[in-house]
Order: sequence, then structure tokens, then C-alpha cells
Amino acid sequence: MSGRKCGKQTVKIDNVRVAASAAIVGNKEAEGPLGEFFDITLPDSEWNETTWEKTEAKMQREAVRLAVVKANRRLDDIDRVLAGDLLNQCISAGFGLRELEIPFYGIYGACSTMIEGISIGSMLVCGGFAESVAAVTSSHFCTAERQYRNPLEYGGQRTPTAQWTVTGAASAVLESGVSVGDIAVTHITAGKIVDMGVKDANNMGGAMAPAAYDTITAHFKETGFKPSDYDMIVTGDLGSVGADILVEQLKADGIDISKNYNDCGCMIYDAEKQDVHAGGSGCGCIGSVLCGYLLKEMRKGRIKSLLAVGTGALLSQTSTLQGETVPGIAHAATFRMIDK
Amino acid sequence: MSGRKCGKQTVKIDNVRVAASAAIVGNKEAEGPLGEFFDITLPDSEWNETTWEKTEAKMQREAVRLAVVKANRRLDDIDRVLAGDLLNQCISAGFGLRELEIPFYGIYGACSTMIEGISIGSMLVCGGFAESVAAVTSSHFCTAERQYRNPLEYGGQRTPTAQWTVTGAASAVLESGVSVGDIAVTHITAGKIVDMGVKDANNMGGAMAPAAYDTITAHFKETGFKPSDYDMIVTGDLGSVGADILVEQLKADGIDISKNYNDCGCMIYDAEKQDVHAGGSGCGCIGSVLCGYLLKEMRKGRIKSLLAVGTGALLSQTSTLQGETVPGIAHAATFRMIDK
Repeated sequence: MSGRKCGKQTVKIDNVRVAASAAIVGNKEAEGPLGEFFDITLPDSEWNETTWEKTEAKMQREAVRLAVVKANRRLDDIDRVLAGDLLNQCISAGFGLRELEIPFYGIYGACSTMIEGISIGSMLVCGGFAESVAAVTSSHFCTAERQYRNPLEYGGQRTPTAQWTVTGAASAVLESGVSVGDIAVTHITAGKIVDMGVKDANNMGGAMAPAAYDTITAHFKETGFKPSDYDMIVTGDLGSVGADILVEQLKADGIDISKNYNDCGCMIYDAEKQDVHAGGSGCGCIGSVLCGYLLKEMRKGRIKSLLAVGTGALLSQTSTLQGETVPGIAHAATFRMIDK
Repeated sequence: MSGRKCGKQTVKIDNVRVAASAAIVGNKEAEGPLGEFFDITLPDSEWNETTWEKTEAKMQREAVRLAVVKANRRLDDIDRVLAGDLLNQCISAGFGLRELEIPFYGIYGACSTMIEGISIGSMLVCGGFAESVAAVTSSHFCTAERQYRNPLEYGGQRTPTAQWTVTGAASAVLESGVSVGDIAVTHITAGKIVDMGVKDANNMGGAMAPAAYDTITAHFKETGFKPSDYDMIVTGDLGSVGADILVEQLKADGIDISKNYNDCGCMIYDAEKQDVHAGGSGCGCIGSVLCGYLLKEMRKGRIKSLLAVGTGALLSQTSTLQGETVPGIAHAATFRMIDK
């Protein structure tokens, strides 16, 4: 029974492919360096809905629909949907997906949710509990900003370490069976909650970097892989502040990821031109960069092997007001293009 | 690969046992009909913490610790913890479990979270992805009341259909290997989101009953089991209002569960003496009744077969304020005492 375990945190996944993925983003994301790769750009921040929360719910629903169509499936073919988001009680998932009638497991990993969904989904497919699983997540600048920080009308000033919540929803469909030309999920590493005592709720990157460090260290140790075994290593979303900390922390251990590493929060915006300070954040950040850009690049053969590390900050407004620190979590998944 | 699937929503689980379970409750729950079965009763609503949220986090942590000790394990033996709760961003889980250093997947199923955790945990163990998994959840009357409804000092009046949030945390440790005398998890049925248009946020039982109906119907259809194949069928937590609806709905289809059915929200309090109106609710309701009472009764051989159906209402304060209805979800798990 322990044949799948590579170590405490990492398991090997057999015979699971990413059948398709889709990403829906807002205008600001479409204007960024990866704009051409996303499937749908919202016409505006509402997308014909009366509240931003309903918009975000619709984004999750449409991301699943689109990924399922791209996988040549019907909604009825999908055995489970694994979904979560940043809103209180994950209402983008609950309300967004109710009309799809797919058996539903709600998950919560803050901005690591996309990789948590792909992790659990890969295990369900690999273990024969489902033939087809959709993982989905979302974030929306307007819903997150008013829930976590200030009313949008307030126009509060942002600190240099602050990140900009991505308006984006992303979904990946996981299925059993891997052939040449497929993208396989081959390893997943579950993260521990890591809290180094950062209390600044405007420095999420700094708070989450130690969790990414912990998970990446475990991943390399348990799999025996080296950074050079990957064409690309991405985190999402540490932003520029957290990404620098991560690279330095790993370097101190003799692990150099600087050559093939990037952070989805740094990739999705042109930080200077788009005035996003330390970069992007939100469940939709690594979600849309992975499902909209990276997996498509893999399908074209431009990236053969990818380590994607989703990072989340497990705080709430209440915990911050009660003087708590910011616990971080990071989940990792290995994707490989099967080319022979 | 599809050998584990009994149908669209149900999978068969092999060789997974509940190694141990533990429940920690508040005073009101200890004074109820099941009081003697719980492992720990809080001395007061704070348990030496400065906020109720910190109390609830501590309850989750101690529930895991206790279940792990009862399973004759160390924390380090636990491969994954699956945890969630009702608080915004699931902070009881995130903050409560950070010092345990167990690889962590956050889940959210509102009051169905205990069964969701047992469901996913059973699949991870059955599939060989983990040898030992802890599922944990919690709720606390004081944290839930002020988050979802009113400040406690306000003393708002409650409607007749209202339920009382259980102060309780519960954990179950799932492991591979089943022998005579063990409690095995044998089937799990994943629920779909069901929304019949109930808008009254004070009638959660009515809102969730259709989801329980949907999942129980799928469970019987896909497994071929009849109500009489179970010594006991429980939901948690429909309360008296929702439980009556469920029994009637199933009866209309020719499925009579009235002989061996109860709802954890009705079991945990003496509704009249304890003035809880329609019964108990909260993640800790089915959690503590299952982990504190039912699984212990199974271990004593008094219940041989149990269908436990966790029911959750996937709403938030924001969705209610925006005029939304209350989507429900229900996840089911079959427990069997192995007696030969």
C-alpha cells in the first residue's frame, strides 16, 4: 500500500493526465504580458452580473464549462469537482457550481487552492475513485479587496510589498490514461502549515515564502529531483518580495533555482507599467497562469517539465484584528510532457 | 481503474479502518443526552484563551492530538490532516493545526465537513497515498453566532426553525488494514450542490434536507443497500424541521428510514429542556456525535452498521445580504463493525 509514497509529504501519481485547462481573466490581466494566452477576457468587472461576487461565481462556472468542452467531455462525464476560493465560506464555488450538478468537494488552501485541487484530484483519479475530475478556483480584485481590506471607493494607498489580487478563474480537467503528447501529473507534495511570525497582512509574499521553501525542500529531498530536472519551477503567488526570499533561502541550502524559476505573481503583470507593486496574488493568479499559459506551453512542447508550487496565506480579517501572525501553506505538483 | 466506482457518486473503500476518534465539547453539549460520551468538556467558553476563535482553534488541535494518542500513534505518524470549519477562511483549522506540522489539506463543506474529511481521507488511505490520515472539524457557538448572526451581547431572539451551533471539535484517525473488531469505512457517496430556493437563513434544516435526500437516494440506488441494511442512519445537522422533511421526501419514493433514523442535531441536545429550538448545528455537531458517541457505540458492538450523512449549507453573510438562496450539500459514509 505504501508504493505510492516517496516520503512523508510526496506521493507518486501514475497514469493521470491533464486532459484540458481553461482560464478566464479580467481586463488588467489581459493587458499583462500573458494576455494572449487566456481563453476569455471579461468585458468589464461585472460580466453582466449585479454584484462582483456573482461575477466571480460565474467565472468559476464558465471556467469549468470551458475546460470540460476542451477535454471533449460533457459536464455529466465529470465525476467530481474540487473547488474553492478566497471569499467567506467559498461562495464563488458554492454558488458558481451549483447548477453544474457535479458531485462536489469544497477545498480551501487560500492561493494554493489550484494546486490543492490538482493534488487531491490526481489522487482520486490515480486511485480509481474517479475517471474524470475538474479542479477549479477563482479570485476577483473587487470581491477580495472589499472583503479583506477596504471598500473600493475608499481608494486606500497600498504599501510597496502589497500584491494586486488577480481577477481570474481557472480549471483543469484530470483524467486517467497517459499517452505520448499528454501532460501527466507525476508527483505531488503536500505542504505543512509554516508560520515564521510575519504579522504584516500587506506582506503576504514574505509570510508565504517559508512555506514554499519548506515544501520545495521536501519535494527535492523525497523525489531525488534537482532543480535542473525541471525546465521551469513556478510559485504562485509570492510576488517579487517573497520570490527573492525563497531563492535566497534555498541558495543557503545549496539549492539553486534561480536559473529556471519564476513566480506567477511576477509573470502575470508588468509590475512597473501596471502599478501592481510586488505583483499579483489570489487563487486565480497561479490558477490562470498555470491553466492559461504554462500548461498550454507544455502542450506545445516548449516546457517539458514543470514544478508548480501553489502558496497560500491562511489568515482572515478576524485573525489579523486579533493580532495573529500569518500562517503559510504551499502545495506542489509535477507536470511532465510525455514525448516518447 | 473503475473497480472502485459503484456509480456516479459512490465509491467502494477497501481496507480502511477508523483507528480512533475523539470529541471535545462545551458545557451545554456535555449537559445534553450524550454528555457522558464526549472525551473532554471545556471548563468554560474560553478554555484559557483570550478570544473564542483561539479557543476553537485549540479545540481542533486538541481533538487531533487526542485521537492520535487513542490510535496509539504519534503526531509524526500522521501523513495528512484534512481540516475545515465554519469561520471565515477556516482559521480554526489553519491556526489550530499549524504547530502539529502534519501535511495539511484544507477542506470546506460547512457542516458536512466531518464526512467530507472522512471521505477524502478514506480515499487517500485506500489508494495507498497515505497510511494514516486525521480528519478534523469544529464549531463554537460564540464564534459562529457573532460571525453569521449578531454580536452575542445583542441577545437577538431566535426563530422556531433556528438551530443552536454546537461548541464541539471532533477528529477521526483513518488507517489502512481492517481486522475483526475494527470499524471499517466501506462506502462513500459524494453529494451534489442542491438548492431548492430556500432563502431563510434561519431555516438551515429546510434548506439542507433536499441535499440529504439527493445523496441518500443516490447512495441506496448505487450501492443496492436498503434502509434495513443499516442499524442506524444519521444526518447532521438537519434539526427537527429538516429531519421531518427528509423522512417525508424519502417516504414519497417508497424509502422508509423512519425506523432507524435520527439527526445529530436532534440527538445532541434535549430540545425542550435546553431551549435550542430546532436542534443543534455546526461542523462540530455531526462531528462530535459521530466521533464521540456513534463510533464508540460501534466499537462496543451496539451499532454494527451506520450510514452517516453530513449536511452543509454553503451560504455566507454576503450571499444572504445579496438576496441569494441557500445551497445545500450532503456527503455520506458507511461504517461497518467487522465482527467476523
